[in-house]
Amino acid sequence: MKTRNLSPDFFLPRSVALVGASGEPGKVNSRAQQLLRIHGFTGKVFPINPRYKDLFGLPAYPTLLAVPEKIDHALIMVPAPAVHEVVRQCCERQVAAATIFSSGFAELGEEGAELQRQIVATARDGGVRLLGPNCLGLVNVPGHTTLSLNAVLEQEQLRSGPLSVISQSGSMLGALISRAQARGLGFSKLVSVGNECDIGVGEIAELLADDADTGAILLFLEAFRDSTRLAVAARRAFKKGKPVIAYKLGRSEIGRRVAVSHTGAIAGAAEVSDAFFQAHGIMRVDTMESLFELPQLVMGHKPPAHRRVAILTGSGGPAGMIADRLGTLGVEVAGPTEEVIRDLNEKGVKISASPVTDIPMGRNDSSYNMILSALLSSDHCDAVISVSGSSSQTNPQKIVDRVFVPERSKKPLAVFLAPRADEALALLGKQGIAGFRTPEACADSMRAYLNWRSPQSNESIRAGELAGPNAMLAATQRDSLNECESLGLFSSLGIPSTHCRVVSGPAEAVDFADPVAVKILSPDIVHKTEAGMVALNVVPADIASVVSTMLGDAAKKFPKAGIDGILVQRMESGLAEVIVGYRRDPEVGPIVLLGLGGIAAEVHANHSVRVAPVSLRTAETMVSEIPQLKTLAGFRNLPRGDCTALAHAIRAMSLLALVTPRVVSEAEINPLIVKRDGEGVVAVDGLVVLEPSSSPQQEAAGEN
Amino acid sequence: MKTRNLSPDFFLPRSVALVGASGEPGKVNSRAQQLLRIHGFTGKVFPINPRYKDLFGLPAYPTLLAVPEKIDHALIMVPAPAVHEVVRQCCERQVAAATIFSSGFAELGEEGAELQRQIVATARDGGVRLLGPNCLGLVNVPGHTTLSLNAVLEQEQLRSGPLSVISQSGSMLGALISRAQARGLGFSKLVSVGNECDIGVGEIAELLADDADTGAILLFLEAFRDSTRLAVAARRAFKKGKPVIAYKLGRSEIGRRVAVSHTGAIAGAAEVSDAFFQAHGIMRVDTMESLFELPQLVMGHKPPAHRRVAILTGSGGPAGMIADRLGTLGVEVAGPTEEVIRDLNEKGVKISASPVTDIPMGRNDSSYNMILSALLSSDHCDAVISVSGSSSQTNPQKIVDRVFVPERSKKPLAVFLAPRADEALALLGKQGIAGFRTPEACADSMRAYLNWRSPQSNESIRAGELAGPNAMLAATQRDSLNECESLGLFSSLGIPSTHCRVVSGPAEAVDFADPVAVKILSPDIVHKTEAGMVALNVVPADIASVVSTMLGDAAKKFPKAGIDGILVQRMESGLAEVIVGYRRDPEVGPIVLLGLGGIAAEVHANHSVRVAPVSLRTAETMVSEIPQLKTLAGFRNLPRGDCTALAHAIRAMSLLALVTPRVVSEAEINPLIVKRDGEGVVAVDGLVVLEPSSSPQQEAAGEN
Repeated sequence: MKTRNLSPDFFLPRSVALVGASGEPGKVNSRAQQLLRIHGFTGKVFPINPRYKDLFGLPAYPTLLAVPEKIDHALIMVPAPAVHEVVRQCCERQVAAATIFSSGFAELGEEGAELQRQIVATARDGGVRLLGPNCLGLVNVPGHTTLSLNAVLEQEQLRSGPLSVISQSGSMLGALISRAQARGLGFSKLVSVGNECDIGVGEIAELLADDADTGAILLFLEAFRDSTRLAVAARRAFKKGKPVIAYKLGRSEIGRRVAVSHTGAIAGAAEVSDAFFQAHGIMRVDTMESLFELPQLVMGHKPPAHRRVAILTGSGGPAGMIADRLGTLGVEVAGPTEEVIRDLNEKGVKISASPVTDIPMGRNDSSYNMILSALLSSDHCDAVISVSGSSSQTNPQKIVDRVFVPERSKKPLAVFLAPRADEALALLGKQGIAGFRTPEACADSMRAYLNWRSPQSNESIRAGELAGPNAMLAATQRDSLNECESLGLFSSLGIPSTHCRVVSGPAEAVDFADPVAVKILSPDIVHKTEAGMVALNVVPADIASVVSTMLGDAAKKFPKAGIDGILVQRMESGLAEVIVGYRRDPEVGPIVLLGLGGIAAEVHANHSVRVAPVSLRTAETMVSEIPQLKTLAGFRNLPRGDCTALAHAIRAMSLLALVTPRVVSEAEINPLIVKRDGEGVVAVDGLVVLEPSSSPQQEAAGEN
Repeated sequence: MKTRNLSPDFFLPRSVALVGASGEPGKVNSRAQQLLRIHGFTGKVFPINPRYKDLFGLPAYPTLLAVPEKIDHALIMVPAPAVHEVVRQCCERQVAAATIFSSGFAELGEEGAELQRQIVATARDGGVRLLGPNCLGLVNVPGHTTLSLNAVLEQEQLRSGPLSVISQSGSMLGALISRAQARGLGFSKLVSVGNECDIGVGEIAELLADDADTGAILLFLEAFRDSTRLAVAARRAFKKGKPVIAYKLGRSEIGRRVAVSHTGAIAGAAEVSDAFFQAHGIMRVDTMESLFELPQLVMGHKPPAHRRVAILTGSGGPAGMIADRLGTLGVEVAGPTEEVIRDLNEKGVKISASPVTDIPMGRNDSSYNMILSALLSSDHCDAVISVSGSSSQTNPQKIVDRVFVPERSKKPLAVFLAPRADEALALLGKQGIAGFRTPEACADSMRAYLNWRSPQSNESIRAGELAGPNAMLAATQRDSLNECESLGLFSSLGIPSTHCRVVSGPAEAVDFADPVAVKILSPDIVHKTEAGMVALNVVPADIASVVSTMLGDAAKKFPKAGIDGILVQRMESGLAEVIVGYRRDPEVGPIVLLGLGGIAAEVHANHSVRVAPVSLRTAETMVSEIPQLKTLAGFRNLPRGDCTALAHAIRAMSLLALVTPRVVSEAEINPLIVKRDGEGVVAVDGLVVLEPSSSPQQEAAGEN
């Protein structure tokens, strides 16, 4: 099945059919036709409903087939069971795209999902692209095109502007439109994607990255359905200087469950999404209004060099709220440098060196302008927040005048207004200055900007670096590797692993000089320690007798278990035990993970995650992100651990994303022991799970 | 100096003098007179300014002394250096209270603080109570009295209602008034306390607890200046069913620094404030708008039995935002029980068992009413959130009708509206239904309500329980106890401590059967381990020689150090090391603290804090709040620790708040070793610092 890519015409149909249009003004199915009219659609409109001869002044047709002219886009509003036939007619009429408003598909469970799959198959065969089902449609504001049933559009005059939105929740579109427009902000494209049966978030984001009217792409996400394509789109948008900003559900377990129940998609852990967003230059916000407040802060700017913000205010309490929250979010509030203070003093403006710069009461607005200009021009901060009190309400124009300095585009400038100040916020919005209504969204947006980084560059590998692992994987017939084979694969990636041997009986010679651990090798015995199937600190002279006893015990206790042999490996010790993991995440693809090993892993949830593969430098950052590993970097008089070797091991593990003969779905070293600085690391135990060998890498990558 | 308590008349002066009033309409000093007129003050107004004969139609007087009638309240707006003389005149005229708007006092540093102290002394001698300085005054809405210069009051018609606010930030008052009134909410009393030179937050809160027009007390705090009085007021308000809700700066280090620089007060760690709020039944919010959104949610309700909230919605995305954030805040989202589902089904309304109850699109509002009533009536949840989408904007009355069920007062009901829905929010406010503008404030308010507890009851002590420690402290002449004396004090409180002796030389006999630790006892040698002044695991036979060597080394390495002797104590070991601390916090008074011991204490910041003394049950809760101690409560096959003995030790430590002969300013056991279940705990090292013996308990307590 070959699918045509969406063309930019998707947003500009010249003729649309409204299938299932109603003639009753109050009914939702009559709304689409009204909205096209209200918002000035200049193309042709064909209402389809066999019960009408005409609808609100336009001739109505019994079916799509009866329409006498070419149809670019069909909006399908008939009940779910009737949708498939309409899609067939779309194929027959070679309609380029159809939006399915109707619900009753994958969001309801397996039966609906099957119906949805059948419809998609029909559409693909016929070359029709599908938006939805279960969606509120699309809006092209500068193109005066609304293919939507969103009630909010009846109330709102649409204002044209640079914001484009893709939302997995239909009602969030309306919420964003109504809130943002009251703030003087305008939109370009708005798309509710619903179940994403065919056209997904990523593909629309690709279109928007190239769309001349789009200056920023906003995403409201419940789960990723096509993260690979979204990654490509985000990188393209980044190159073109268009910020991509996401609000994604799933920070908490209950949030993930709700997202799943609502969409039928899989939602992964919050840190996996964070890793994805960071890897591809997407800013993630955690407050609703940041989604439309942040764009004006960042449009025209690049990711910051550091993470320091200056605050200027005439109102201590409101500025304190912002500073306090920034502090909890890990953002540095930077007071003015001596140079800034001196330069201003020479111009007759006195400020203090405290972290928040207070404008003394009664100072005129030209002092405010001068201080703000000085902060925007100085290298000691990467962004500036201006906080205003009651004048925001009593004198809205004054707020704009205060911040309307020529230097305002030098770095991101946020304006927070403490009272209700709708007029001042709207004025700021119209002037392209980022206004904020709550201290929480202001601080959240500033954090999002200051955490923004250029997309992670692809890790380059040395010639032949993957020859070893590729050879091993090519030779493997099974879908999982045992402990010893797994350690062998890690060794081939350059990760030092403990010396180990698999023996089948006590007679077999083993070459160990140091104490060893002896373990049963069996896929059928799970809790080996509890089952007495692990012996630690066995001296070489005792190995044969321990092996013999363990085989005997196993035969007695687990008569039905398949025994692959007995694993003998050198005992290792060091300063810390960590887990280094790799997996193909169902949402975002290959990721690498660093966490604490042993019981600590289950008690502390701390871990660091990145999209794989990673560079050595990224791996070093991951090590620094685990608070419990701080002691390894030198703490008091404790010995330092070999953090460099640990970072090398993380990078090496992440290269599993690039092996070719087989697809590694999951791999874990647990524990990897970190020794003293200079003494390296050693993998002690691990596992590797492969995708069934029938699915070669190429296909798997394509599916992602 | 005896100070009269404020009388309720403070809010209802019948005559006010405006000292420093101006005749120029645009000037801030002319505003107070305008505001009194605008807001309908019916008492007498005496403008004071020698440059005018009359001001805006009222006769003006050159000084307070020239006013021919009794003056209840003086609003002082003259420059700081002139304030003292005005206060003297207030004393002469027996003005009951004066509000000092003027700034230039303690907030500027020591010089201003000295001037402030002089003014307070004059006022106390003369029986005049002072509000401010550096404050925006007070407003009594139902009493039509504004003694304020707040610009926001020029714009806003004041709406009478149950909310009273005390704010340490003047501009926050204006911010709250303007935001809340747009939501249909009304106020009773509003007070900007400024530097609190005399009248503080606590004293005003006491008045408000008894004020018939006040239904809820809202606090915007930068730091505590009189926490003892605030505690009394909060408990009185709780008894009367008036919720006390606080937003306090200082969640982060930078927030504390900003609060300090702004107010000149000391701001302590966030968890100390949390402990104070919890101990006295105050709800703490972390979002600005929660401060006025939360009261309608909780007025008329008691603290909840559990922490479970039900969510009802027609819009998946917005409800997902709320659920997700509740999850990150540790609140349980409770789906409907089978009973609720069955009962509704019998009435013809089908809902699913998923955590968020979705109203299928197209269901009529009577179904919505029925489901909401069922949730409000069921015991499976402690509060309910109703989330609405586009109809909030298109049909505001529908939103009210949806939630206006007779059961709406059975438990707290929050309504979150996803689009801009100013009209619906105002309608809800007027109906006394708690509306929320952002998902963040909605979730934050719900968390604050569900974390609300009745004030901590005073811990009762057993007869004679403090006899031992009181006797020890009475006998102590010094202001700090050494390690061995400290352990003795902990023993007298019933906390098992390791066997220890202080010896002065190798000849002294010591009675140890087990290995010991040997340490130098000297206040002048700080890093004893690094200095080689600690020997561990010394067998009894070696004690004399180790003591001898250590004394010799100390004399060589630290010739100027005072040596109190050598500490010999039994080595102890167990499952975990913790710190149990006690101190008189400068903000909130006695607190008890539990944290991790050893290096873990510095790596992990986790600790649990309560206002002291605590009950055994509270101490047990503290143990459960440290994630790293989870293993002690039984984890996998790890041995269980003696958590009961640990809780007993925490409670015992907290009793230091009640000892009488001396005031303990700080005490710490570090480490307290927790042994296996049934084997108890043992204090291994510690310190105790006392207040200088000249300050007996009574005086210190009074200062708090």
